[in-house]
Amino acid sequence: MSKPFPASPVSVLGLGMMGSALAAALLDAGHPVTVWNRSAAKTGPLVAQGATPAETVTDAVAASPLVIVCFTTNDNVGETLAAVDLTGKTLVNLTNGTPAQARALALRARKQGASYLDGGIMAVPQMIATPGAYVLYSGDEQAYETHRPTLAALGGTQWVGTDPGRAALHDIALLTGMYGMFIGVAQAFALVRTENITAAEFAEPLHAWVSAMLGGVVPGVAAAVDSGQHLTDVSSLGINQAAFSNFIETYDDQGVSPELFVPFQKLLDRSVAEGHAADGLSRLVDLLKK
Amino acid sequence: MSKPFPASPVSVLGLGMMGSALAAALLDAGHPVTVWNRSAAKTGPLVAQGATPAETVTDAVAASPLVIVCFTTNDNVGETLAAVDLTGKTLVNLTNGTPAQARALALRARKQGASYLDGGIMAVPQMIATPGAYVLYSGDEQAYETHRPTLAALGGTQWVGTDPGRAALHDIALLTGMYGMFIGVAQAFALVRTENITAAEFAEPLHAWVSAMLGGVVPGVAAAVDSGQHLTDVSSLGINQAAFSNFIETYDDQGVSPELFVPFQKLLDRSVAEGHAADGLSRLVDLLKK
Ligand SMILES: NC(=O)c1ccc[n+]([C@@H]2O[C@H](COP(=O)([O-])OP(=O)(O)OC[C@H]3O[C@@H](n4cnc5c(N)ncnc54)[C@H](OP(=O)(O)O)[C@@H]3O)[C@@H](O)[C@H]2O)c1
Ligand SMILES: NC(=O)c1ccc[n+]([C@@H]2O[C@H](COP(=O)([O-])OP(=O)(O)OC[C@H]3O[C@@H](n4cnc5c(N)ncnc54)[C@H](OP(=O)(O)O)[C@@H]3O)[C@@H](O)[C@H]2O)c1
Repeated sequence: MSKPFPASPVSVLGLGMMGSALAAALLDAGHPVTVWNRSAAKTGPLVAQGATPAETVTDAVAASPLVIVCFTTNDNVGETLAAVDLTGKTLVNLTNGTPAQARALALRARKQGASYLDGGIMAVPQMIATPGAYVLYSGDEQAYETHRPTLAALGGTQWVGTDPGRAALHDIALLTGMYGMFIGVAQAFALVRTENITAAEFAEPLHAWVSAMLGGVVPGVAAAVDSGQHLTDVSSLGINQAAFSNFIETYDDQGVSPELFVPFQKLLDRSVAEGHAADGLSRLVDLLKK
Repeated sequence: MSKPFPASPVSVLGLGMMGSALAAALLDAGHPVTVWNRSAAKTGPLVAQGATPAETVTDAVAASPLVIVCFTTNDNVGETLAAVDLTGKTLVNLTNGTPAQARALALRARKQGASYLDGGIMAVPQMIATPGAYVLYSGDEQAYETHRPTLAALGGTQWVGTDPGRAALHDIALLTGMYGMFIGVAQAFALVRTENITAAEFAEPLHAWVSAMLGGVVPGVAAAVDSGQHLTDVSSLGINQAAFSNFIETYDDQGVSPELFVPFQKLLDRSVAEGHAADGLSRLVDLLKK
């Protein structure tokens, strides 16, 4: 898939599962790629695909105007780049972290002479450069516009704003949605197994039901949250609270730990105690604000 | 929509939001419907649609071979029918409850001379008799076969087994999946609001992401759970555990309560402490077994 015109050079720091997938996608798109990893052995497969290995972080940064970093934590990023000259570089940090961490790294990068972009990768390594993958970006908009054609080799590009913490916020909010979904799916499978129902036979009805509810809940809750109108004629907090004790009782009866759902029961109880029995579940979004 | 041939008579006990929707759907399908409610006023709209009001529960039960009950709790069902002659009747209990409650009511109903079916309604009242609605049934299979044409007026009919508790188990497992999804969606909206991102603008990416993940997670976890093969090369418990502290930290930083996700963090911690760091999230289904 290499392109007929000269593509701009990129350096990739961090060749774990994700960094290796990013570097490979850039090579596939025809970019000259310089790679560096703390343990040098991981450069091997990428060098075989055409990447240039750098001996030091400083060499790797010097090799390209665009430097993509993907380490385990943002602490690793701060430490590894602390003493490196970043003048004139664009640093794209695709390491997972909090909005506050991204803002702090953006400040440091600017002091070291770099433009900073933070990114949230909405994909597993196997999905990089496939149609389903995309990356959220925030920070220096000029740098984003300049390097967007290169970044597009990794997957869709989604700009979310100039606050460098914004990509992390979006990323964590989207993944929070996924973890909640996972909690429900895991508890459901744990429950049906207690009656020797296989997960395979329960998978299709579970997927169909949660998918249908997701399609109604997301826009429904969104409208209620934005308007502040939580009253419902469909499924009130009062009804949900009354029903939910059956859920916890069933988990206990069947020998499944209720631990993942006990705080939800407490939140339902609190919502009714605070006078919201006639409101819909959307009211809980307000109650989660500290 | 009344039919040209005589449809079999049905009695409906309990005319709350759900019971009223059930009775209306049966009337629409052309069945002679006898209705009873503890507070008699609620029979009004259904009588206007052609239902016959019964003065007492005993009269209502006597009026039809098929008796559908939909009260708030199964305790209400036991109390209301305790002294009623049910000889030769089929009792279809569509009240929400636990599998154990359904089994106990089935025993009592049989002692009182009735065939018993328990049902789980996978719909809100507004959805009854629409294509998306279905009801899970378990218990007396002969009674189910006999009355299935009538029950089909309420929505799709889904047989799940002769254990009377089975419909409640399926119902609670499916709704558990929905509540987990809701927990994720609620926390995600609470989080983005702290940066003045409207729920409306976040709804589409959130729906797309959770929907895509749901489509992969459900079959993936199902296969791992049934085979007992939890090792993964995509997203290990170790990686998830390391990342999740960023989530809790972000909730705290942004002023959103982490209460709904703290037990998930503890479960991730426990999974790694017990030596499952290289396994996928599917391993947590095992760990939920007490
Ligand atoms: N995997 C996914 O599905 C996924 C999805 C989205 C986002 N992410 C994020 O992408 C990042 C990397 O994930 P991954 O899956 O590639 O993890 P990984 O396979 O564990 O790789 C971690 C990388 O970080 C490097 N590293 C760790 N500590 C370092 C230090 N102190 N100094 C320099 N380098 C250090 C490692 O170098 P060594 O080889 O020398 O140890 C390795 O290159 C994480 O923030 C992760 O949350 C991952
Ligand atoms: N609404 C939904 O979205 C939905 C969805 C699926 C399943 N369900 C289940 O359907 C059942 C009914 O729900 P609903 O929405 O119809 O609730 P509802 O509107 O609150 O109606 C409750 C009904 O139960 C009756 N009842 C309560 N206590 C009673 C007692 N001690 N003796 C006799 N009757 C009694 C009420 O009679 P009075 O009018 O005299 O109070 C009323 O008819 C519940 O188990 C619910 O979980 C509901």
